[in-house]
Amino acid sequence: MTLIVAIDSLSVEEAEKLARSLCTWVAGFKVGLPFLLVNGVRSLSGLRGACPEKLWVADLKLADIGHVMKLVTSSVASYVDAVIAHGFIGVRGALDELKEYLVSLGKKLIVVVSMSHPGAEEVYDKALPSILGVVAKLRPWGVVAPATRPAIIHEARETLGQGVKILSPGIGAQGARPGEALCAGADYEIIGRLITEAGDPVASAEEVLRKQREMLRKCRG
Amino acid sequence: MTLIVAIDSLSVEEAEKLARSLCTWVAGFKVGLPFLLVNGVRSLSGLRGACPEKLWVADLKLADIGHVMKLVTSSVASYVDAVIAHGFIGVRGALDELKEYLVSLGKKLIVVVSMSHPGAEEVYDKALPSILGVVAKLRPWGVVAPATRPAIIHEARETLGQGVKILSPGIGAQGARPGEALCAGADYEIIGRLITEAGDPVASAEEVLRKQREMLRKCRG
Repeated sequence: MTLIVAIDSLSVEEAEKLARSLCTWVAGFKVGLPFLLVNGVRSLSGLRGACPEKLWVADLKLADIGHVMKLVTSSVASYVDAVIAHGFIGVRGALDELKEYLVSLGKKLIVVVSMSHPGAEEVYDKALPSILGVVAKLRPWGVVAPATRPAIIHEARETLGQGVKILSPGIGAQGARPGEALCAGADYEIIGRLITEAGDPVASAEEVLRKQREMLRKCRG
Repeated sequence: MTLIVAIDSLSVEEAEKLARSLCTWVAGFKVGLPFLLVNGVRSLSGLRGACPEKLWVADLKLADIGHVMKLVTSSVASYVDAVIAHGFIGVRGALDELKEYLVSLGKKLIVVVSMSHPGAEEVYDKALPSILGVVAKLRPWGVVAPATRPAIIHEARETLGQGVKILSPGIGAQGARPGEALCAGADYEIIGRLITEAGDPVASAEEVLRKQREMLRKCRG
């Protein structure tokens, strides 16, 4: 299972229908802040019910002091398996407190080490060594690294080893092709609009999985 | 007016009562993600009604690609005057799109240039020159710089000049004293728990304002 579907700008009904229809094809779902703010955190209960056994990730892109991140996490934790926070904010008084809180709840922390848009080169990428240092210290369950810049996925895998899952967004609307991030070392590709805005999301997901396999056959020889 | 009160973990009723009672004493209110996720964005309508003429800031600490930040902002924009995003995400495909969108709505952008917790030194502070470069390019209405590290407020003011407002959190629960950030060059001090968790929030706010004036008298001679 290599596909995580991103849910951002759907209604609750659309999202539940999508989760039900894609449930057998995906490793999980990532629910973004746009969906959560518009529909409320309680909408996650029914949404998760549409495909309960897969990985559910709250993509809050947390980037605040520990006190605030724990408050935010407490409002979604009972509905999801994992929460995404930015590595940029550092360990002390921030990610240390969040990690400890998530572990106490039996939940996973996923840390962003770089992003998929062009502006990531302006600041974020320059800080990559420090951010990988933060991740090495924290030892979270997973990290987010962009499919649009495979070299960063390589570097994350080399620095962090096999003990951490790598999740890669940036496929489709943002330019990377299905399978590219997997070839670079990612465990999961996160895909949103390419699937959620397709006329037939199941067909689009099957096509993505086919392309991932094809690309993997080529890159692994 | 130098005080912005942060609303994070209150109920809607508590927050409305607080906003009404503090309305004459403050420059505005900053509403955090914990409040918005639990109570829903529509709760901002009544909350703003409790003190409509002051500055209302949605503290989403946005740190995502432009597409997602615009989706998130569209859900709160009609209730607030300004939105907070992180400077570390860079301009292209991120803050440029958000700024353009906010300007089209007649709303303000506030950019975080550094944070108030100890872990900010691990990555964020090292990137300060690049982040100030991002801000100089963007020219947002305001920036956030921590009261707990006045040297960063000084540097932001020197680099960015008088054309940008500086908002400083980190007072009270996080260790800085009222007035310290103003002395370092900030326009507003953002205070949460010291006021919102006080038995008498109005008395606490008055005490903060008194201490700010006293500190300013000393530092400005």
